[in-house]
Amino acid sequence: MRIGLLGFGVVGRGVYDITSARSDMQVAKVVCLEDISLPDAQVTKNFQDVLTDSTIDTVVEAMGGLHPAYEFVRAAIEAGKNVVTSNKALVATFYDELLPLAQSKGVLFRCTAAVGGGIGWLSELERARRVQSIHRVGGIMNGTCNYILDSMTRLGLTYEDALSQAQALGYAEANPSTDVDGIDTWHKLILSSNIGFSVSLDPQSVPAAGIRSIRAEDVASFKAHGFVCKLMATGKNQDGVISAYVQPTLFRQGEPEAAVPANYNLITLVGSASGRMSFYGQGAGRYPTAYNVVQDCADVLAGKGFYSPYGKKVSAVNADTLCYYVSGVQDAWLEENRQASWGSGIITKPVTVEAMHSWLQAHPDAFIAALPVNEN
Amino acid sequence: MRIGLLGFGVVGRGVYDITSARSDMQVAKVVCLEDISLPDAQVTKNFQDVLTDSTIDTVVEAMGGLHPAYEFVRAAIEAGKNVVTSNKALVATFYDELLPLAQSKGVLFRCTAAVGGGIGWLSELERARRVQSIHRVGGIMNGTCNYILDSMTRLGLTYEDALSQAQALGYAEANPSTDVDGIDTWHKLILSSNIGFSVSLDPQSVPAAGIRSIRAEDVASFKAHGFVCKLMATGKNQDGVISAYVQPTLFRQGEPEAAVPANYNLITLVGSASGRMSFYGQGAGRYPTAYNVVQDCADVLAGKGFYSPYGKKVSAVNADTLCYYVSGVQDAWLEENRQASWGSGIITKPVTVEAMHSWLQAHPDAFIAALPVNEN
Repeated sequence: MRIGLLGFGVVGRGVYDITSARSDMQVAKVVCLEDISLPDAQVTKNFQDVLTDSTIDTVVEAMGGLHPAYEFVRAAIEAGKNVVTSNKALVATFYDELLPLAQSKGVLFRCTAAVGGGIGWLSELERARRVQSIHRVGGIMNGTCNYILDSMTRLGLTYEDALSQAQALGYAEANPSTDVDGIDTWHKLILSSNIGFSVSLDPQSVPAAGIRSIRAEDVASFKAHGFVCKLMATGKNQDGVISAYVQPTLFRQGEPEAAVPANYNLITLVGSASGRMSFYGQGAGRYPTAYNVVQDCADVLAGKGFYSPYGKKVSAVNADTLCYYVSGVQDAWLEENRQASWGSGIITKPVTVEAMHSWLQAHPDAFIAALPVNEN
Repeated sequence: MRIGLLGFGVVGRGVYDITSARSDMQVAKVVCLEDISLPDAQVTKNFQDVLTDSTIDTVVEAMGGLHPAYEFVRAAIEAGKNVVTSNKALVATFYDELLPLAQSKGVLFRCTAAVGGGIGWLSELERARRVQSIHRVGGIMNGTCNYILDSMTRLGLTYEDALSQAQALGYAEANPSTDVDGIDTWHKLILSSNIGFSVSLDPQSVPAAGIRSIRAEDVASFKAHGFVCKLMATGKNQDGVISAYVQPTLFRQGEPEAAVPANYNLITLVGSASGRMSFYGQGAGRYPTAYNVVQDCADVLAGKGFYSPYGKKVSAVNADTLCYYVSGVQDAWLEENRQASWGSGIITKPVTVEAMHSWLQAHPDAFIAALPVNEN
């Protein structure tokens, strides 16, 4: 396999390093806007040099961002090249278009590293659904949020200090919105639900609550009641009715989710035959992510493409009722639904996920966290 | 795919149920000594009926035990049929012979369900090692022991009561030795190390300590010091030197291993690129185990055989030094190595794994548990 590598940042460099040691795949050209030189690959600033090189059979896209990643990937497929990408935004936005295009051109398209970094989650999910139906997908899918919540819980840090530390360590961006507002997790959940349940979810029907407004005081209350807070993605298929949402969720100390440290992920599926299966590993980082890109290249070499096409367009129906912890805002609806108080936060009576998220839309400074179902 | 199914117990019945719903594979004949009848498969007491049926391309062995499973599987391979087996004892004992035989006959041989039941561990390990070297394999690999230890920890049961409960629930056999003496975990560790590290370990060089002698008092001491006890398999490859051992091990409350409940497994590899990856799921049970048997059948349909051949014969070198908790026996060597006391148990100074297990051989009524490395 001769690879045209787009991007030479965290992931691209990792792909280059891992493939250097292999005889079955080589990075032949690297598209990179910086002035670098490599002993065994040609570096160019011009994507056309890759596109028109007929000796390059596979394009690895590790640039990130929607544009020009989308245009480059599309052109590569049109030109008859296989594509492997780790770009979650690209895949979440254009999967529905790129997959059929790749199929019509007879090339392979894989994107395992787009969800879960070092965890081969999408490969696992695709494999799991070969022999059973998938009832649930989800879990802790964002290492940045887990790092922040874990630091607040174990070290008693404030949100601001935990975020700064995550930024200093390179786990969080200068503008952390994509992570802390749950957008990254939301992308991953939609992609996982679509592949797991064979649907094409209307993204507008999938609400996401993040962790931006959590305070040290909230975490102290959770601890006092024996709980740990995690940002959870939940996707469920109940007889064809799909529910899907992202929200902070409390777990009893001693449960597997509560034990996930630092920037690790724990991603779960529940299948009709296998029961619960969970995958634990590093959700980001150079070599873990590059590892799954190279796994995809190995699968392309083996002739294995990706994935199931999406199914019919559906809206999520989030009619489950849960009790929530809510803090930071007070109003009449909350008072009406108050069941108990934890410090300055309140515990609601059971309300639907949909109702809670609608309320949150109108009160964006509030923090919410769902209590476990069996505590409701 | 037309399947000849050997055995119609827990796993065999599950395989029949799952494949009944599929169009790409059917159980054509079942070898079963009991008088049953099935609407869409012929039942026979005679294996020759499967062996001589040229329309059957794949034999699924779900009988368990070494004999006649070995003779049947060997004959099936000789007759040019693919083999899928969930039989750990068979695979641990005869892998080195059956794999080359299958290769020479041009048939496929898979055994994912032999380790981890519902967790596709051996498939994962085989996949992981395509693109990196494996530094570590192991984890919680026996659901029976985990169920007993978890019940003792969470519910404060005695060993005897926890074992009886596990037996009543079908998680433990009437004679539980294979599980509680660590033999099952030992089989799984040797198989995983051989596949992960490309070696053929001398089984005699791999020591196993079990949980038969653990008392409620030991568990109470662990709890008081913030620890949870689990039966762990550890396999490590340090620059070609392999160490491998099975022993009860203490984890700090809050660590992932400490949070594994009931009869679940948590199996881990550490790779040069991916870092730590762990797989969590049900280590046994009808549908979880049958799920991986059917996954293997799907891989056989896709032309994907199993696994890497073993590598060169080596002995494990267990020179790591650890501190141990020891209870139930007192003697001069222990006194010499005493560092502290926990109730009637003692904490040793750092001793080699090899020295500790040699001592245990001479004192089979003792209970030992390793402290975490970072507590040494």
